Amino acid sequence: MRAAFMTGQDQVEVRQATEPALEEAGAVLRVEACGICGTDARTFFNGDPRAPAPWVLGHEPVGVLERVGPEAVLPPGVEAGGRVFLGSILTCGQCLPCVDGHQNLCEHHLLYGYDPFPGAYAEWAAVPPIAVKNLIPLPPDLPSELATVVDPFACALNGIEVLDVGLGDTVLILGAGPIGCWQAVMARDRGAGRVLLCDVNRQRLDLACQAVGGFVDDAWTAGDDNGLAGLLERTGGKGAERISVAAPAKQAQQAALEMAAKRARIVYFAGLPKHDPVSPLDMNQLHYKELAILGAYGATHRQYRITMGYLDRRRDELAPVVTHRFPLDRIDEAFETIRAGTGLKTVVVP
Amino acid sequence: MRAAFMTGQDQVEVRQATEPALEEAGAVLRVEACGICGTDARTFFNGDPRAPAPWVLGHEPVGVLERVGPEAVLPPGVEAGGRVFLGSILTCGQCLPCVDGHQNLCEHHLLYGYDPFPGAYAEWAAVPPIAVKNLIPLPPDLPSELATVVDPFACALNGIEVLDVGLGDTVLILGAGPIGCWQAVMARDRGAGRVLLCDVNRQRLDLACQAVGGFVDDAWTAGDDNGLAGLLERTGGKGAERISVAAPAKQAQQAALEMAAKRARIVYFAGLPKHDPVSPLDMNQLHYKELAILGAYGATHRQYRITMGYLDRRRDELAPVVTHRFPLDRIDEAFETIRAGTGLKTVVVP
Amino acid sequence: MRAAFMTGQDQVEVRQATEPALEEAGAVLRVEACGICGTDARTFFNGDPRAPAPWVLGHEPVGVLERVGPEAVLPPGVEAGGRVFLGSILTCGQCLPCVDGHQNLCEHHLLYGYDPFPGAYAEWAAVPPIAVKNLIPLPPDLPSELATVVDPFACALNGIEVLDVGLGDTVLILGAGPIGCWQAVMARDRGAGRVLLCDVNRQRLDLACQAVGGFVDDAWTAGDDNGLAGLLERTGGKGAERISVAAPAKQAQQAALEMAAKRARIVYFAGLPKHDPVSPLDMNQLHYKELAILGAYGATHRQYRITMGYLDRRRDELAPVVTHRFPLDRIDEAFETIRAGTGLKTVVVP
Amino acid sequence: MRAAFMTGQDQVEVRQATEPALEEAGAVLRVEACGICGTDARTFFNGDPRAPAPWVLGHEPVGVLERVGPEAVLPPGVEAGGRVFLGSILTCGQCLPCVDGHQNLCEHHLLYGYDPFPGAYAEWAAVPPIAVKNLIPLPPDLPSELATVVDPFACALNGIEVLDVGLGDTVLILGAGPIGCWQAVMARDRGAGRVLLCDVNRQRLDLACQAVGGFVDDAWTAGDDNGLAGLLERTGGKGAERISVAAPAKQAQQAALEMAAKRARIVYFAGLPKHDPVSPLDMNQLHYKELAILGAYGATHRQYRITMGYLDRRRDELAPVVTHRFPLDRIDEAFETIRAGTGLKTVVVP
Repeated sequence: MRAAFMTGQDQVEVRQATEPALEEAGAVLRVEACGICGTDARTFFNGDPRAPAPWVLGHEPVGVLERVGPEAVLPPGVEAGGRVFLGSILTCGQCLPCVDGHQNLCEHHLLYGYDPFPGAYAEWAAVPPIAVKNLIPLPPDLPSELATVVDPFACALNGIEVLDVGLGDTVLILGAGPIGCWQAVMARDRGAGRVLLCDVNRQRLDLACQAVGGFVDDAWTAGDDNGLAGLLERTGGKGAERISVAAPAKQAQQAALEMAAKRARIVYFAGLPKHDPVSPLDMNQLHYKELAILGAYGATHRQYRITMGYLDRRRDELAPVVTHRFPLDRIDEAFETIRAGTGLKTVVVP
Repeated sequence: MRAAFMTGQDQVEVRQATEPALEEAGAVLRVEACGICGTDARTFFNGDPRAPAPWVLGHEPVGVLERVGPEAVLPPGVEAGGRVFLGSILTCGQCLPCVDGHQNLCEHHLLYGYDPFPGAYAEWAAVPPIAVKNLIPLPPDLPSELATVVDPFACALNGIEVLDVGLGDTVLILGAGPIGCWQAVMARDRGAGRVLLCDVNRQRLDLACQAVGGFVDDAWTAGDDNGLAGLLERTGGKGAERISVAAPAKQAQQAALEMAAKRARIVYFAGLPKHDPVSPLDMNQLHYKELAILGAYGATHRQYRITMGYLDRRRDELAPVVTHRFPLDRIDEAFETIRAGTGLKTVVVP
Repeated sequence: MRAAFMTGQDQVEVRQATEPALEEAGAVLRVEACGICGTDARTFFNGDPRAPAPWVLGHEPVGVLERVGPEAVLPPGVEAGGRVFLGSILTCGQCLPCVDGHQNLCEHHLLYGYDPFPGAYAEWAAVPPIAVKNLIPLPPDLPSELATVVDPFACALNGIEVLDVGLGDTVLILGAGPIGCWQAVMARDRGAGRVLLCDVNRQRLDLACQAVGGFVDDAWTAGDDNGLAGLLERTGGKGAERISVAAPAKQAQQAALEMAAKRARIVYFAGLPKHDPVSPLDMNQLHYKELAILGAYGATHRQYRITMGYLDRRRDELAPVVTHRFPLDRIDEAFETIRAGTGLKTVVVP
Repeated sequence: MRAAFMTGQDQVEVRQATEPALEEAGAVLRVEACGICGTDARTFFNGDPRAPAPWVLGHEPVGVLERVGPEAVLPPGVEAGGRVFLGSILTCGQCLPCVDGHQNLCEHHLLYGYDPFPGAYAEWAAVPPIAVKNLIPLPPDLPSELATVVDPFACALNGIEVLDVGLGDTVLILGAGPIGCWQAVMARDRGAGRVLLCDVNRQRLDLACQAVGGFVDDAWTAGDDNGLAGLLERTGGKGAERISVAAPAKQAQQAALEMAAKRARIVYFAGLPKHDPVSPLDMNQLHYKELAILGAYGATHRQYRITMGYLDRRRDELAPVVTHRFPLDRIDEAFETIRAGTGLKTVVVP
């Protein structure tokens, strides 16, 4: 089979490789599409010790479950020969968070596509035994390309569940990347009274409005005040009842506190850089307005399942989110597209 | 009647005054006890434009409802001649938070005991019309002295409700002042698996343990690490599921994030000084552990009612919280006691 | 002015009357539209001691606030000269449920349009002092006719809030009258994965599908099994996660238990006839599937406000719900339309 | 080893048997105590096809984990040689409820102590592979006898969690058997304002009050009105905010609706007999008071863990709940004690 090997920092080579072996309790996928996420791109551009060259990346695969080991226990609804998505967070299933259904906080989780589990920028991909329980069946009408976003979309959905949007709430999304776009759509689908979208980057905001503008009531580019004046003006000074900070930006985190209505819930969706995680925040905003600042990380099995149904139902409206697709042989161009920042979601199609 | 007039910064004089007039829709209390809270003390020590000298302070009064105006609408259960507590937050009753039952966030709230409403360090005190709805009947067996704490206790209870303690949770209280003490008691009464108490001040912690030690499983003095090592050791590195930061300290706010177990809820109960409200907080703790940081401010009418019943049920165990009582004529000593920081709650008994 | 007097059972006469007087703390509306609800119709057909002939009914009025008494305290956003809706449940504002924001459960509530408060099937209508706090401003683009449904729609919304629809849930609505239609729309707007509608009456179901079919995934007529087989077939035997019984039918209440998925929430929205309120229900369905059976009654002030915004946002899609409108002079035809059961919502337009 | 064989209906014989074999992924317990629950008694008195004679019953075992198979994956905190409790509901771990942490609703659950898994009225008991994940470590100071109640206590705790007791609530428990007793204790430990206990059987109520009376504010024997008058009198006609019907009685289920305060939550804890599960219930009580009727079934892994800690913390107060203990050789007397109904919890101690 053909596979894309990362042979060094910023270097990729598509070459012939042996097909993955079938484990007793594992399976093998014929890959139909595999997304590229920010983590893949950062690994490709900067290297990562968990991806020792030559290494095959790719952890958002959709494919056909061509081979299933005799001891593999497939999840409900998954069948040999069917199309599936493989969730990349490999969980132990036995620690307390796993047993309680909070797999996103598994004490021992690993990541598909990183050592020791090669990824899916290839024609075929192994499903190791630990990953079998992560297989999710695809609805018949959902394109494989769109289904590659299940992973980040499920995380965005976790953020929306934590946000707990009520009917009629004014919901503000700070950050117009893919996560912000999807959360805008979901906020609308939770019955938000108004969905507002704001970003510091006009180009990104325009791109977002092209993709999901139909779900957004109003959008504007943030200036030095991080969008504060625009929000207060649009809410008569009252602020927003729900805010998602879908950008790894301290300024947005602080601004969100000032943008919040009394009793507002605010999700800080994105993590900050590991070397610089301390954010200066006005805690009297929290105190006197009785705010809630909430973290959201990864997604649970339940949320993966819901996401699949959601994508299927909104498949027409969400299709524009996949802005670029490249054959495996041109995977280098796919990475370049991400570096240029001109698209939302880029997918590799073997 | 006799009343204590603040005649200047740090100056008080008990003198004869005319009894308060009865308003058509108001009432008049014969004061039995009136607590001194931190705000009273700060006003006395530093002055406050809302307390123009000579001024009668006192906003935690308990007394007998001796006179009731003909147009006063008494709340359910309140009767002329009965003992009552007067909640000090005077709310409009018509703004949206009030209508929705969130009186603590009233858009137009005023404070009893401050201009234009004289307070209750006196033998008699007026209940202005706006305050009538704040009257709460006392249970027969609840001492008036202990009932003066309804106001701050209701706020502490709001914090506990926001904290949402579950059966079996490990609850950590950072700060061993009156609020911390009461929250420790309430955490136990919500079924906490363990109640832990920590303070930077050994003397305060000792005092707290004398008062409410029977409700606390373990307590220790925080050092330079704000108590972090002590907490991790006591939880096998897992952290606490619920944390109340009952101290206006940034270091405690940050430490709480590191002390938190996965999916923990943290209430920042106390506000920070108005001129210095920005707290540097590690937001990756929030993100990767999916924490919730929650504000709690004041208390609702519902919470005032619950507090009265709670104090009554725990009246024996909570009695030690009132460590000092002074007759009106010695109110200056009462303020000195607070300045010295040697007590928990100080009450004036006309 | 002209007004419609119910002069006896099933008899109405439009005649000249004196305009309502302005009370000091009240107001007067120039009526633009007033809905007819089931209660009005039953009163008209059968009589009611609270509507002593000759009596002017009408408790879903929308109009212009032409006159405002000097002591009237208008709610936030309401102004003299503006268009408003008047919520018909007149609450005391002082009992514990009212103070806590649960006005729907007011201990002393009265009903506008019934003795001693004449209704609004007239050119002008009084707003008595107790009703002033029930005024809600209309958004500029919301037609007065559609706004007359705020009252029952807010109740439907209460049911939806109690139902607590989650993203991706399968929601089943039993009963395709106006309430069922609106709840179907709102279930979709809460992110239901599928919205299913079922009624025993094919004609009513067809009418519903014409009005709100765009929000419904599937609908069917219930037979002797009250729709059970149809639901199980459509969910692969799993049942629905959320069910609203929007019909006053015991059979539907019992069937809902069998239609419920594990951990399902079921709202019994409609009350049963007062003389026959006992429903035989299989409690082992409740037990072994851990179901929740939930009551929903009336609506709170908060829910009225949310409803107004919701109607405005969905005004185009919901317009077909008002199937009939009649001038005041033909109000007898309006009642006949309701008797015939051929429409959804009928409105009188003075 | 010695084991108690049920050799026919109402017949038991303690005889020599071979020790259980160790499975690769299983373990073997040296039994220290094993409770008798109502299900065991009914099986013994009436027979059950899942317990083909001669059969060893017993599904509430506590013991020492003497032997552990080489492929057994012990849960966190469990070690060979340690004391453990074995939860009897054997869950698949792979169906959707299991994956989501709702093991009590497992699609494929089996029961330890029934075919094909012999029970623990014996000196040694097998832990089959499917049961290994159900092992819970005992705290050092918790007596093995008391720990046998983990199973039913965890179910009682599930009911209390579903009940969602708030600080200050009046909680009524209908039914004074072991479950009712434990729920009374837990309701107090959730901060109930008042805990009320009621039963139709005076003897059972007296026994309950001896065991847990210190946690109960008031108790009375129900007459023909199922306790209604007594409750209304004790609450000034207001009713109880939280009610657990801890008895399999239709009359109590219906009475609970009349005993409920507005917005009350009611848990129907006990299932009804399978041949007669239909309860006639006044649904207008549900509607006009906006009640919630809630099912509770079994317990989750999380709840088992919490229960163990809870029993340990309350071990002194809960010790009286175990009223009878018998050596294995006198197990026939243990069953007689249950038939006589004179005790709360009976335990077999090999």
